[in-house]
Amino acid sequence: MAKKTFPLSRVYRLLEPGPVVMVTTARKTQANIMTMSWHTMIDFEPPIVGCVISNRNFSFGILKATKECVINIPTVSLAAKVVGCGNTSGRTVDKFKAFGLTPAPASHVGAPLIAECYASLECRVVDARMVAKYNFFILEVLKAWIDPSKKRPRTIHHLGRGAFMVAGRTIKLHSGMK
Amino acid sequence: MAKKTFPLSRVYRLLEPGPVVMVTTARKTQANIMTMSWHTMIDFEPPIVGCVISNRNFSFGILKATKECVINIPTVSLAAKVVGCGNTSGRTVDKFKAFGLTPAPASHVGAPLIAECYASLECRVVDARMVAKYNFFILEVLKAWIDPSKKRPRTIHHLGRGAFMVAGRTIKLHSGMK
Repeated sequence: MAKKTFPLSRVYRLLEPGPVVMVTTARKTQANIMTMSWHTMIDFEPPIVGCVISNRNFSFGILKATKECVINIPTVSLAAKVVGCGNTSGRTVDKFKAFGLTPAPASHVGAPLIAECYASLECRVVDARMVAKYNFFILEVLKAWIDPSKKRPRTIHHLGRGAFMVAGRTIKLHSGMK
Repeated sequence: MAKKTFPLSRVYRLLEPGPVVMVTTARKTQANIMTMSWHTMIDFEPPIVGCVISNRNFSFGILKATKECVINIPTVSLAAKVVGCGNTSGRTVDKFKAFGLTPAPASHVGAPLIAECYASLECRVVDARMVAKYNFFILEVLKAWIDPSKKRPRTIHHLGRGAFMVAGRTIKLHSGMK
């Protein structure tokens, strides 16, 4: 699998449908993975993303300190690993090893891409004013990668308590919406 | 269709999968509808939701002034009306009339529910500090309604430029995640 550059102007199309994502962070030689569903686009270009990362999560401290992460988007074939990463903590588990995922170097941030994910967004924290009250980070996407061989990625969408909706058919309507 | 009370503790299950929603607002006798996809859960209970409503939208001024709205969740049968509401402005169009949608009174806010939507969340703005910079409103859900006859609601998820993913099959994995 070789990910290719994806235009920043189209990043919103990856996140706006609401997929579960896997956020990677890294400090020194230690990288971590966190499963996350609470995110939203905030602006188109540069792409600005808001997301909630709880201060109970190991990733919270790393993200606050390094201000860097990668948002990786998995498809349904990775669902068991996604749930595994959601059920464990980086405090005690090396999740790349435990779940057989492959870290790949990013170009703009210290956190790694997850090679098995079909898309990856290298991000920097640009506004941390809402972190203390809401655990809400505002990120700018600096660089986006996609696996162009995945034409119809079957993303997964969390319905709560381990139930996931798998992306179904696509419909097209005449729209003036961006 | 009669919507029933839905527990606030489970509201995250409705929004976390990332559906397109229809936001209603009202000022005096004038109610408006806006199509929206940029939202995220921020906390479980009380349910706190963050969402972007652009200052170019007619709804922006009403929401800022009244601090009240309803987030209505449509299914695929309403897709054409969802896109219609996204392509028009409340400045010139009465969208309830134009798209044949039925306003129903809410219990806690002045904005109406959309009767045809399978779920509706009555919301109040609880934090507007990020509005000036990001058009980002933080809402508390005061009351939630659901149509219990819709067992597997086929929500729609915006992929950009009028393409929508329709909610597909559900899978269940063992998860400690809420």
